[in-house]
Amino acid sequence: MTRTAVKPETDVVEGVYLCTSLDLPDLFGDALANQPGVRLYRPDEVPDPSRIRFALVWKPADDAFNAYPNIELVQVIAAGVDGVLRNPSLPDRAVVTRVHDAEQATIMAGFAGWHVVWHHRYMGNYLEAQRSKTWDRTTIKTLRPPSEVTVGLLGYGLMGQAIARTVASMGFPVLTATRTEGESDAGVTRMSGADAVSRVAARSDILINILPLTDDTRDILNAELFAGMPKGAALIQLGRGPHLVEDDMLAALDSGQIGGASLDVFRQEPLPADHPFWSHPRIVITPHEASVTSPQAVADALMQSIRELDAGHRPTAAVDKSTGY
Amino acid sequence: MTRTAVKPETDVVEGVYLCTSLDLPDLFGDALANQPGVRLYRPDEVPDPSRIRFALVWKPADDAFNAYPNIELVQVIAAGVDGVLRNPSLPDRAVVTRVHDAEQATIMAGFAGWHVVWHHRYMGNYLEAQRSKTWDRTTIKTLRPPSEVTVGLLGYGLMGQAIARTVASMGFPVLTATRTEGESDAGVTRMSGADAVSRVAARSDILINILPLTDDTRDILNAELFAGMPKGAALIQLGRGPHLVEDDMLAALDSGQIGGASLDVFRQEPLPADHPFWSHPRIVITPHEASVTSPQAVADALMQSIRELDAGHRPTAAVDKSTGY
Repeated sequence: MTRTAVKPETDVVEGVYLCTSLDLPDLFGDALANQPGVRLYRPDEVPDPSRIRFALVWKPADDAFNAYPNIELVQVIAAGVDGVLRNPSLPDRAVVTRVHDAEQATIMAGFAGWHVVWHHRYMGNYLEAQRSKTWDRTTIKTLRPPSEVTVGLLGYGLMGQAIARTVASMGFPVLTATRTEGESDAGVTRMSGADAVSRVAARSDILINILPLTDDTRDILNAELFAGMPKGAALIQLGRGPHLVEDDMLAALDSGQIGGASLDVFRQEPLPADHPFWSHPRIVITPHEASVTSPQAVADALMQSIRELDAGHRPTAAVDKSTGY
Repeated sequence: MTRTAVKPETDVVEGVYLCTSLDLPDLFGDALANQPGVRLYRPDEVPDPSRIRFALVWKPADDAFNAYPNIELVQVIAAGVDGVLRNPSLPDRAVVTRVHDAEQATIMAGFAGWHVVWHHRYMGNYLEAQRSKTWDRTTIKTLRPPSEVTVGLLGYGLMGQAIARTVASMGFPVLTATRTEGESDAGVTRMSGADAVSRVAARSDILINILPLTDDTRDILNAELFAGMPKGAALIQLGRGPHLVEDDMLAALDSGQIGGASLDVFRQEPLPADHPFWSHPRIVITPHEASVTSPQAVADALMQSIRELDAGHRPTAAVDKSTGY
């Protein structure tokens, strides 16, 4: 077959899709088809594994990278890279990049804001009253002004900052734990230091988790953290399943220490049908759909990283393997 | 009885509570008790009606103002003044003031933002899936990026601007109809002119009404407006009950022209138990609780208006009786 290329074939950078759970060519093929200078293959269609210089990945198999001795770039299709960093075949030389998608961050901000209002305003009461056709004007009598309700935010990257802007616009003081001190944004107070997370939690009437999963953050949402929070506080869990010690969550809800929770991620997904979270009256469950990255944003991120690597620069979206994000 | 006043009695400005539906002394007495220089009476306790210089009101009786020949100031306890302006006994000389409460505006912003996300993300699907313990990851597949979903805003005062900030922070382009051109806020496009409302509606995937009720805005949410909107658009009605032609709303929902609605205000409140809105699957009902003004904010507003009047100025919170807001 004759191939008509704008550039000579040697200028084409070749990559491979590596994934065990999704059909990546189906999801991203269209967005990548029109990108000049790159070509992606399914693993079983790769003509010469030694020419593969990058991979587009999601949950790659443990040995997925072994076949490709010259991989320089591993582009993850989302913001969370914890699974890829733990992959035993990931070569040391490969740079791992994740997607920084401003639109995805605003999608997350709207979702987080929705859950903040759900807990602050007891919006479930209204839905229930409507089902019984009851005009009940008592919910607002207990409303705490948002200026007196602190929203804590664990995680303050692109998504955390977008969430902070939305929550602050609703009148809530926002408190966030960051590794380093930094400039304060409007309405946002940053705490840093080793105990920043527990100090933020201790003041949070509503706590939002959007942290990356690392050795330091695994199991971070646990009984001790909950015990230090204001009684009846709410948790909005948008990070990673292993952040949350699920039995501790149930105990804190049942004791009233935690008043309500919104959970989007779980240790086991899909959440098993017999899991007690499903039927808990003060838990709202969503199936890991808090936000989504568009195929175009993934394609754009990949192309930018390839361009940066080709120019001899470290990609701006590169993950620091020592911190895990 | 001897009365010990910090100031001589002649320095005290006297006012009266006028209301047919709420116990205003019960609601506002505490917040007003510590304000120096003012004293409020229930109508049946007024010592000398000619000394009454102001009234704190909500839904006053048609003849409520007749007994007080020297009223200069009528302070409404909320942002909506339509009922008071139509009161036949309201004296021409009296200045009507309303509450501009920044905290109330943020409360409204959170509430409006919640309903925007409810319609944008089909959040009801998640609540329903949870009831049947179903892990259903199909909702997000149809998600339109917020940057492609225009939120229209009818009304751009203190509350409208707060709503615009929240909605814009969630990534939605915001379009608003204003009487006059003005500077654009970040992410907000202002349209003006006689047909601004219909032009905004024509581009609004989600339309929020927060207009004041005037002769010009009564029945503004009607079949013609709905017909001009994008098919399947959502309506969030936070203004006044008489803005909405209820039969037109039901017809537009049933035809699919309007995809969903959130309604907080109604022509008849409480909403009658047999009203078809209650059980409509694509309507969310809240009992006129979108926001609330604190007693302290009302007391502060009243005191400021009294001070301004005493200093010979027109109160900054005064309503323009010709426009009705």
